[in-house]
Amino acid sequence: MPIGKNNSLTDVPGVKVGHVTLDKDSIKTGVTAILPYDKNLFREKLICACHVINGFGKSTGLVQIEELGTIETPIILTNTLSVGTAYEALVKYMLNTNEDIGKTTGTVNPIICECNDGYLNDIRGLHIKDKHIFEAIKNADCTFEEGNVGAGTGMVCYGLKGGIGSSSRVINLDNKNYNLGVLVLSNFGLLDDFILHNQHIGPKIKDIIKSTKETEEKGSIITIVATDIPLSYRQLKRVIKRAYSGISKTGSFTGNGSGEIVIGFSTANIIRHYEEKDILDIKVINENKIDQIFKAVSEATEESILNSLICSNTTIGRDGHKIYSLKDFINRILPY
Amino acid sequence: MPIGKNNSLTDVPGVKVGHVTLDKDSIKTGVTAILPYDKNLFREKLICACHVINGFGKSTGLVQIEELGTIETPIILTNTLSVGTAYEALVKYMLNTNEDIGKTTGTVNPIICECNDGYLNDIRGLHIKDKHIFEAIKNADCTFEEGNVGAGTGMVCYGLKGGIGSSSRVINLDNKNYNLGVLVLSNFGLLDDFILHNQHIGPKIKDIIKSTKETEEKGSIITIVATDIPLSYRQLKRVIKRAYSGISKTGSFTGNGSGEIVIGFSTANIIRHYEEKDILDIKVINENKIDQIFKAVSEATEESILNSLICSNTTIGRDGHKIYSLKDFINRILPY
Amino acid sequence: MPIGKNNSLTDVPGVKVGHVTLDKDSIKTGVTAILPYDKNLFREKLICACHVINGFGKSTGLVQIEELGTIETPIILTNTLSVGTAYEALVKYMLNTNEDIGKTTGTVNPIICECNDGYLNDIRGLHIKDKHIFEAIKNADCTFEEGNVGAGTGMVCYGLKGGIGSSSRVINLDNKNYNLGVLVLSNFGLLDDFILHNQHIGPKIKDIIKSTKETEEKGSIITIVATDIPLSYRQLKRVIKRAYSGISKTGSFTGNGSGEIVIGFSTANIIRHYEEKDILDIKVINENKIDQIFKAVSEATEESILNSLICSNTTIGRDGHKIYSLKDFINRILPY
Amino acid sequence: MPIGKNNSLTDVPGVKVGHVTLDKDSIKTGVTAILPYDKNLFREKLICACHVINGFGKSTGLVQIEELGTIETPIILTNTLSVGTAYEALVKYMLNTNEDIGKTTGTVNPIICECNDGYLNDIRGLHIKDKHIFEAIKNADCTFEEGNVGAGTGMVCYGLKGGIGSSSRVINLDNKNYNLGVLVLSNFGLLDDFILHNQHIGPKIKDIIKSTKETEEKGSIITIVATDIPLSYRQLKRVIKRAYSGISKTGSFTGNGSGEIVIGFSTANIIRHYEEKDILDIKVINENKIDQIFKAVSEATEESILNSLICSNTTIGRDGHKIYSLKDFINRILPY
Repeated sequence: MPIGKNNSLTDVPGVKVGHVTLDKDSIKTGVTAILPYDKNLFREKLICACHVINGFGKSTGLVQIEELGTIETPIILTNTLSVGTAYEALVKYMLNTNEDIGKTTGTVNPIICECNDGYLNDIRGLHIKDKHIFEAIKNADCTFEEGNVGAGTGMVCYGLKGGIGSSSRVINLDNKNYNLGVLVLSNFGLLDDFILHNQHIGPKIKDIIKSTKETEEKGSIITIVATDIPLSYRQLKRVIKRAYSGISKTGSFTGNGSGEIVIGFSTANIIRHYEEKDILDIKVINENKIDQIFKAVSEATEESILNSLICSNTTIGRDGHKIYSLKDFINRILPY
Repeated sequence: MPIGKNNSLTDVPGVKVGHVTLDKDSIKTGVTAILPYDKNLFREKLICACHVINGFGKSTGLVQIEELGTIETPIILTNTLSVGTAYEALVKYMLNTNEDIGKTTGTVNPIICECNDGYLNDIRGLHIKDKHIFEAIKNADCTFEEGNVGAGTGMVCYGLKGGIGSSSRVINLDNKNYNLGVLVLSNFGLLDDFILHNQHIGPKIKDIIKSTKETEEKGSIITIVATDIPLSYRQLKRVIKRAYSGISKTGSFTGNGSGEIVIGFSTANIIRHYEEKDILDIKVINENKIDQIFKAVSEATEESILNSLICSNTTIGRDGHKIYSLKDFINRILPY
Repeated sequence: MPIGKNNSLTDVPGVKVGHVTLDKDSIKTGVTAILPYDKNLFREKLICACHVINGFGKSTGLVQIEELGTIETPIILTNTLSVGTAYEALVKYMLNTNEDIGKTTGTVNPIICECNDGYLNDIRGLHIKDKHIFEAIKNADCTFEEGNVGAGTGMVCYGLKGGIGSSSRVINLDNKNYNLGVLVLSNFGLLDDFILHNQHIGPKIKDIIKSTKETEEKGSIITIVATDIPLSYRQLKRVIKRAYSGISKTGSFTGNGSGEIVIGFSTANIIRHYEEKDILDIKVINENKIDQIFKAVSEATEESILNSLICSNTTIGRDGHKIYSLKDFINRILPY
Repeated sequence: MPIGKNNSLTDVPGVKVGHVTLDKDSIKTGVTAILPYDKNLFREKLICACHVINGFGKSTGLVQIEELGTIETPIILTNTLSVGTAYEALVKYMLNTNEDIGKTTGTVNPIICECNDGYLNDIRGLHIKDKHIFEAIKNADCTFEEGNVGAGTGMVCYGLKGGIGSSSRVINLDNKNYNLGVLVLSNFGLLDDFILHNQHIGPKIKDIIKSTKETEEKGSIITIVATDIPLSYRQLKRVIKRAYSGISKTGSFTGNGSGEIVIGFSTANIIRHYEEKDILDIKVINENKIDQIFKAVSEATEESILNSLICSNTTIGRDGHKIYSLKDFINRILPY
C-alpha cells in the first residue's frame, strides 16, 4: 500500500507529537505527547476507540473511551510508575486551558499510556515531573524524532533497543486520498522470536550477542492509530484490532507480562461538548470497503515497530545494563 | 414520560409482530416473529445492538450483531430446544426472498431468541416446525396480542403466568416526536421478589397460593427494543443496557439460570448491502440528550413485564402443572 | 437475608477502611482507603473482578484486573480530578513497602476510583495531596464512619447528601458462615427518581424542598464488594454485576453522565507473586448455589446506598451550594 | 516446542474427532464433530472459553460459554447455512442421551461453528441433514483425516484448497507432560498475503496460477483448542486469544468478512451438573508459567493452518469453480 508523505503518524493533518527525553546516567526515561487536533479538544472532541490485546498494563482513560467513544485530551506516553504524575499534570493542563471544567461543566478524562522501562531506567526514582508533561505538549510538532527518545528513551524490544516508531499509509476513498498513521512505543518481545520482513533473524542476532539471558516476555507495546477517514466508534475499534496482526508479524506471541494496548482516533467528525442540536450528522465508511484500512493498520504497525528498532541507539542504563541497537547487527545479518 | 399511541413495540413505524400459538394439552409453546422493517431487510439493513445481562441463554446471531452492528433478518422468539428448527426455517425464508444469498453474495445472520417453557410445555417433544416460523412471519402486523400467546404461550414469570408484553414511550427531539417501543418475552423471577409499581406484592400472592414451591430462579427474559430515533451502534448499546434497570424494578436480582438478553434496533438509518459510495452519511443523537431515551427504555421494559403478566391467563400444562395469572389476585391484593 | 455483625464491608475478616476528610469552607472532599487484606497484598494477591455499568468514569487499574483477575494494592476512593495525585501517592506507598517493585520484579497496578464532588467542593483547587492518601491507609480499621466522610465528604445522591455507605449479608455454605460486604461511594441519581424501600418518596421530598433545579443525572457510584466466599474471577464478575439490580431498586435508570463501576474481591484464595509450583489448587463455589450470593449483593448494595444517605448531614459547600440530608425529611415523609 | 505424539488435537487424552464428507458434483460440504471427553459431557462438564477475533460469523453457544465457562455438548463444524440443522440434530442427540434435559432439569447449550463453503459447494441446497450430524459423532475417533474432509470439504484458504488441519505441542509442568492440541477449519485469506514458514510465497503462486481474481477476504477460520493443562476460564480465554498470533503469521490481516472464532476447553477439571458440595476444589496454572502455553497455541495454530492446506487436494465444485491445492505448487516454489 502507498506510504504517506513522511511515513509518520503526523501525516494525518492536525496531529502533532512532542518529546521530552531524560537521558543521564541511570535515568533513561521521558515523555511523549500526542496532540490529535489543533483546536480545543475538550470542546471539540474526536471519535476514539481503544482495544486491549493483553491487559497487563496501567493505561488510564480507557473505560470512558469505551463508553463514550470520544477523546478530549492529548495522549501522554511515559513510564509505568509515572502514570500518576502524568495524570495529575494533564489534569492541570486541561484546567488551565478550560475554565469550565469542574466548575460549570463536568470533569475530564486524561489518557495516559505506559511501558515499563525499568531494565535501563531507575524507574523507582520517579524522575518524571509535572513540567516534563507540559514541555512535551509544548514541543508537539508535525515532525518528531523516532527511536530512543521521549517515552521511548529506556524501552527494550525483542532484546534490542526499542522506543518510538511511526509509519503511515494512504487510502483512496470516493476519489479522495486519506491518511492513516501509526505510532508505537515498543517495549516487548523476546530476541529469539524476532522476525524482520519475514526473515526470522532473532536467533542469528542472539548467536552474535551471546550474553543475552532472557526467559520471560515482560514488556509492552502501546500503539496509537490516527486517521482522517470517517469512522464510527465501532468501525474504529474494528480497525485498531488489526494492530495485533502487525505486531504478530514481527514474531511475538504476546506474552503474559506484556501490556498491549491500542488507541485510535479519527479526525473526520467533531463531537461538540456544547452541542445544541439534538440530532447530528456524522460520516462513516461503507464497511464493504474497510479491508484496505485493516491492511493499512497491520502494515503500518509492523513497520512502526521495525522503525522503532532501526532508529534506536545502543544504550547503557542503570546498573550497567546494556541493550544493543538493531543497527549494530543489520549489516552482518542482512545477507541472510 | 408520554406513552405511544398503542403503548406497543409497533408504535415505531414499520415494525410488525406476528404470533403462532400451539396450545393443546401438554403442548404450550409457539413462535413470535418481529419484523423490524417493511422493506427487504437483507438489502437495506438497520443499525442493531445486543446486550447480554446474564448469558445463561441460547440466542443466535449475537456475535455478528456485536461485530457489524446491523440486523438483516426478522427476529424469531421461540422455546429453547426449538432454536435450531427456527434457525433452519429462517434460513429457508431468507433464501426464498433473496436469490443472491450463498450464490453471488455471502450468507445471512439469523436472529433467534428463546426462553425455556419446559415447566408448562412438553419441550422435549420439539413441537415447533418450519411452517410455524413461516406462519408467524406472515401473521406479522401492527397490532398483536399480548400475554400467553406466540412464544409466550408456556412462559412463567415471578411464579405467575408470563409471556409477551409490550409498551412504548414518545420522545421529542429537535421538535419532532420519536417513538421507542419494548417487547418482552418474560419467563423469569421468583414470586417472593415480585414488585408491582413499587408494591412488593409477591409475598402476599404467595400467601394466597400457598402451594408454590420455588427454590431457584431458572427463567429468562428476552427484551426487544425498537426506535426511530437516530442512534449509532454504540449509542443503541448504551440505550438497551438500561433494560436491566426496568427489569430490576419488578423485583428480580437476575438469577444464575436466567438468560437475560436485549436486542435493539433503530429504523432511522439504512445500511445498504450493495452500497456504492465509500463514505456514508448517518444520523446519530447528541449524547447529552440521551438520558430521556435511557429512562424510556427503563420505564417501557418495566411496564412490558407487567403487561405480560396482566394479559396472561391461568394455564394448566404438561403433567398437570398449573400457573396462575396475576389477574386472579390483582383485586384481592391491590388495596395494599 | 441475615445481616452481618456490623452490617459493614469490614464484616469480611481482614478488610479495613480508613478515611481522611477535608471539610472546611469550600473544600468538601477527602480520601477513603480500602485495605482488602492484612498481609502484603503485592506478594499475596487476592482474586478480584471489576464491572463497568456505565463507563463515564476515570477509575484506574481496571484493565489489569480484567486481564489477571487479581488485586495487589489497596483501593483508594477520592474526587475525580485528584485521581493522578492518589495514583502517584499509592505508587510511592507500594514502593516504600516493596523493595523489589521496579527493580528485581515488575511494576504495580494501583486501583483508584472516583466520583465528581464538584458541586459542593472546589474540585479545581486540587486539595488532595500525597499525605492524605498515606493517612487514609494508616487510618484503616475494622470500624469506620459512614455518610459525608472521607471520599464521601462532598458527594450528592438523588439530590440529597450522599457519600459513604455500607452493608453486609451472611451466607451459609457447606455448614459454614461466610460474609459478603458492600461499600458504596454514592454520588448519582435525580431526586424525582428516588425510591426508599419500595416507597417512591423522591417527588414528595422535592415538593418540600421546592428550590431544587435538576435536569441531568451527572453523578456516579463506586461499589466495592468484599467476601470470604471462594470464587473464581468469572464467578466474582457475575456476582458483582448484580450491584446494578440493587442500584436500580433505589430508583435510578443510570444516566449518561454517571460513572458506575463495581470492584469485588474474595479473600478465600491467595495468588502468590513468587509462586514456585506450576499447578495451584484453588477453591470456587458450586455455581448452582450462587443465587444467594447474587441476592446478597443486590440487597447489600441497595442498603449501602440508603445508609450513605441516612448517615450524611446537610452540607453547604462552594458558592453557597446547599444539599439537604435525607434525615431532614425522613420523619415528615415516612407516614406515606 | 516439542510436538505431540500425532501432532493432533486428539493428542489430548479423551478428545475424539469424526467426519462426514459430502463430495459429489456440486455438493462439496460436510460435518466434523469434536468430542471433548469420553464421559457424559452434560453431567460432567469441562471448563471452556471462547474468543471472537472477528465476529462476521454465525457460531452458536458462545453466549453461554462466556457466562458459565463450561461446555456440555460436542462441538459440530459445518457450513454456514446448515447451522440450524446441525443445532436441531445436536439437540436431538442430547435429548436421546439425557432423559433429564427439559424435563427434570434445564435445557442444553449446543455448540455449532461454521464457515461459508459457498464458492465450491451448492450451499443454498442445504444438503446437510440430521443423520450427518449423528454419523459424524458416531465416527469420532482418536485418529482422523485432515484436508478436504468433513466440514472442510468445500473450504478455501488463501485462494488454495483449505479445510481441516491439526497440530499439537507438549508442555512440561511440575515434571509432568501435558498436551495442547489445535484443530482448524480454514476458509480465509487472500493468496497475495500467504506466508509459509516466514516465506511470503503467496504472490509467487499467484504468478503461476494467473487466473485468480480475488478482491475481498470473505472467509472464516474456526480454531478449536484442547488441553489437559489445568486452566480456569479466564486463563483459558487468555490462552486461546493467542490463536490470532498464529493466524497472523500465515499472512492474513483478518478481513471484514472473515468470521474468526476460537473455542478452547481443558479436560483437567470436571464441573458436575448435579454437584452436591457447595465449595469445589479446582486446579489452575501458576500464571507466571503461562507463556509457554501461549506460545504453544500460536505455533500449533499456524501449523494447523499449513496442515489444512498441505493435506487438501485440488477441487472442482459448483459452476466449475476450481481451487488448487498447495501441493501442486510446493515443489516449484520451495527453492525460494
